[in-house]
Amino acid sequence: MTNEEIQLQVLEMGRKARAAALELTKLSSETKDQILLAMADELEAQTSAILTANEKDLASADELGLTDAMKDRLRLDETRVQAIAQGIREVAELHDPVGEILKDWTRPNGLRIQKKRVPIGVIGIIFESRPNVTADAAVLCFKTGNATILRGGKEAIHSNRAIAAALQAGGEREGLPEASVQLIPHTNRESVRHMAEMDQYLDLIIPRGGASLIETVVSLARMPVIKHYDGICHTYVHSDADPDMAEAIVINAKTQKPSVCNALETLLVDAAVAETFVPRIAQALAASGVEVRGDERFRELADDPDVRLAEPDDWKAEYLDYIIAAKVVDDLDGAISHINHYGSRHSDCIVTADEAAASQFQLEVDSACVFWNSSTRFSDGAEFGFGAEIGISTDKLHARGPMALEELTSYKYLLFGDGQIK
Amino acid sequence: MTNEEIQLQVLEMGRKARAAALELTKLSSETKDQILLAMADELEAQTSAILTANEKDLASADELGLTDAMKDRLRLDETRVQAIAQGIREVAELHDPVGEILKDWTRPNGLRIQKKRVPIGVIGIIFESRPNVTADAAVLCFKTGNATILRGGKEAIHSNRAIAAALQAGGEREGLPEASVQLIPHTNRESVRHMAEMDQYLDLIIPRGGASLIETVVSLARMPVIKHYDGICHTYVHSDADPDMAEAIVINAKTQKPSVCNALETLLVDAAVAETFVPRIAQALAASGVEVRGDERFRELADDPDVRLAEPDDWKAEYLDYIIAAKVVDDLDGAISHINHYGSRHSDCIVTADEAAASQFQLEVDSACVFWNSSTRFSDGAEFGFGAEIGISTDKLHARGPMALEELTSYKYLLFGDGQIK
Repeated sequence: MTNEEIQLQVLEMGRKARAAALELTKLSSETKDQILLAMADELEAQTSAILTANEKDLASADELGLTDAMKDRLRLDETRVQAIAQGIREVAELHDPVGEILKDWTRPNGLRIQKKRVPIGVIGIIFESRPNVTADAAVLCFKTGNATILRGGKEAIHSNRAIAAALQAGGEREGLPEASVQLIPHTNRESVRHMAEMDQYLDLIIPRGGASLIETVVSLARMPVIKHYDGICHTYVHSDADPDMAEAIVINAKTQKPSVCNALETLLVDAAVAETFVPRIAQALAASGVEVRGDERFRELADDPDVRLAEPDDWKAEYLDYIIAAKVVDDLDGAISHINHYGSRHSDCIVTADEAAASQFQLEVDSACVFWNSSTRFSDGAEFGFGAEIGISTDKLHARGPMALEELTSYKYLLFGDGQIK
Repeated sequence: MTNEEIQLQVLEMGRKARAAALELTKLSSETKDQILLAMADELEAQTSAILTANEKDLASADELGLTDAMKDRLRLDETRVQAIAQGIREVAELHDPVGEILKDWTRPNGLRIQKKRVPIGVIGIIFESRPNVTADAAVLCFKTGNATILRGGKEAIHSNRAIAAALQAGGEREGLPEASVQLIPHTNRESVRHMAEMDQYLDLIIPRGGASLIETVVSLARMPVIKHYDGICHTYVHSDADPDMAEAIVINAKTQKPSVCNALETLLVDAAVAETFVPRIAQALAASGVEVRGDERFRELADDPDVRLAEPDDWKAEYLDYIIAAKVVDDLDGAISHINHYGSRHSDCIVTADEAAASQFQLEVDSACVFWNSSTRFSDGAEFGFGAEIGISTDKLHARGPMALEELTSYKYLLFGDGQIK
């Protein structure tokens, strides 16, 4: 395809998606849930077609240079397809926030104003590797009445096509408006650019993938982008921390699942307790198989030759691995300024028994989720009780932190008059 | 200045603004209000310096090719300076939304979660011509705890500098953190680009000005942009409309203040009542000095040689003048699809006695404000009771419609645990 043909194809998908979005606003919650259940059923019914498509993707994986971890994320089997279908059924069970009246008031002139929750419109999702994103993202956007244009990576194109086809076939049987869920059927790089420039049709783009994908989308996009950047999460052990609690929280936040964005990456220890806490936590981290990269003070107190000296880049690292950066800070202000300087505004924690210190930390740390005496691993839509999430936003506009159904909606004002003029 | 010097200057302002934003989160509402009152007092105290600066700008107005209307918007006098100061005092009186607890719940594991309203951080405002924007925008952003970087147009640079200096001097006397309100002191075009690319420091850009300014910012910006585009507002006279009410609403929405974004631009008349309503409204519009550009059916029924035939561009025109486009539509569906196709998602109205028709219109018209039996002129922050507004957003993310103090805030999650681990 020429670049012009790709552009025309993307524009035509945009035009159809906009029309679909207007139709979607008319569907009741019940109808949407029936469509979701039909999507789940059809996905299961098409398991063998999906697995055959997935085999094709896996056959190209070596050629595309995928690591074993990437291949594992790409691989589908019967259980994983069932899990995707089950995920869709769970979304059908969730409360639909669309239509909620957020405010309702009447002005002195008699004009009544309602602020009503509505779908955003058309959402573009650009994602990499995991084919389950095709279903997860499309389904959350559809539940909230949004049309989607999905653009996956080339490593999963056959799987993505098969999954999208099943969602469309199942949904249309129950009245899903045409073009509500569209997948760009190829993976030409230019399609990302055309999506990002199509602000007449796309209301929002959500890139789900690594930093370089997000960077590309941000630099091209004319419409809002909600970014799910790194989680450089901190835990600060205050002078008034219970050392047992602090150790349990640090070990849990670092080791319970190191590969995720809400895992701990940097430990800050208050100088007032460093002499006793640093040797203890250094030992506990080593016993859990965690490599420690400490600043001078931390290394000296740890008195362990395995604690490496941290390089400047360690303070900005999202390791996603059994590695932790560790630093002794002078006091609460030192901890807060370190986090605001090096952090990624994702999730940070203070361990302390001092309520005033905790309040100051929660006020001044500029992050989406600020914890007091808890593992940062709870920074998650499911743990918040949201039922599902599309990611953890590191942005401050529209959606911050765990982004679930409500964050996939906008609002409009309805005004009820009886002839008011100005 | 070389481009590199400009970039360094803008970056340094960004770095300082980020530091100021962290300080601003610590200020109480009372302190912020005292600072606002001191800003207002200092603005009045510096009236003569501000007017001298304004004279310099007016002296260059002809050279810059400003129209009389633009010169009028640029001109300050004692009354206008007092009005700006008074506006600041009114903002001080408003309720500060920062700190509000939006949600508060406890999870089964005992983890308590609060969703708390916080400032956005650093906001860039890029604006044209009216020097009062310097004060209006800075003051609304400051009230909500945000630091601002202001970049005005060259036609008002001396006035803008004098106003910004007064705000800073007055504010700092009462403890305004340094660099909370900064004005880029020159108007080199490259400064817009450097602001738009500085996403490490700016959380949001709001362009206030014409479409070409907004376009430029949108195409360059790496951070969220909230756009206040055109208001191509419609009023649809349904088959079940009270003709007296319909006429009053149409004339008011078109003529009460044609130069603003919530003024009526396109009239749609249902075919079922066109035969009686079109001649009547054509006459009323003509009597109010409004030029009518009608489609074939409208012209035929109006039977008035002064009604010109509308060109295709008339359906997308924001005249901001005594001109209206007028069209006969077949039915409610025809009105809705015309508005969703040609409108700007700003403010649209149906006049009808039929509640079902009004509900369908309010559900399906994809605009920020959808009116039933009221002039669209009420699409305005003050008319909504918000006390102040920074503009009418035609975006759907974060802020839609009248954008006031709440829309200048973000939120964060505070989590209160007692040692929760996963």
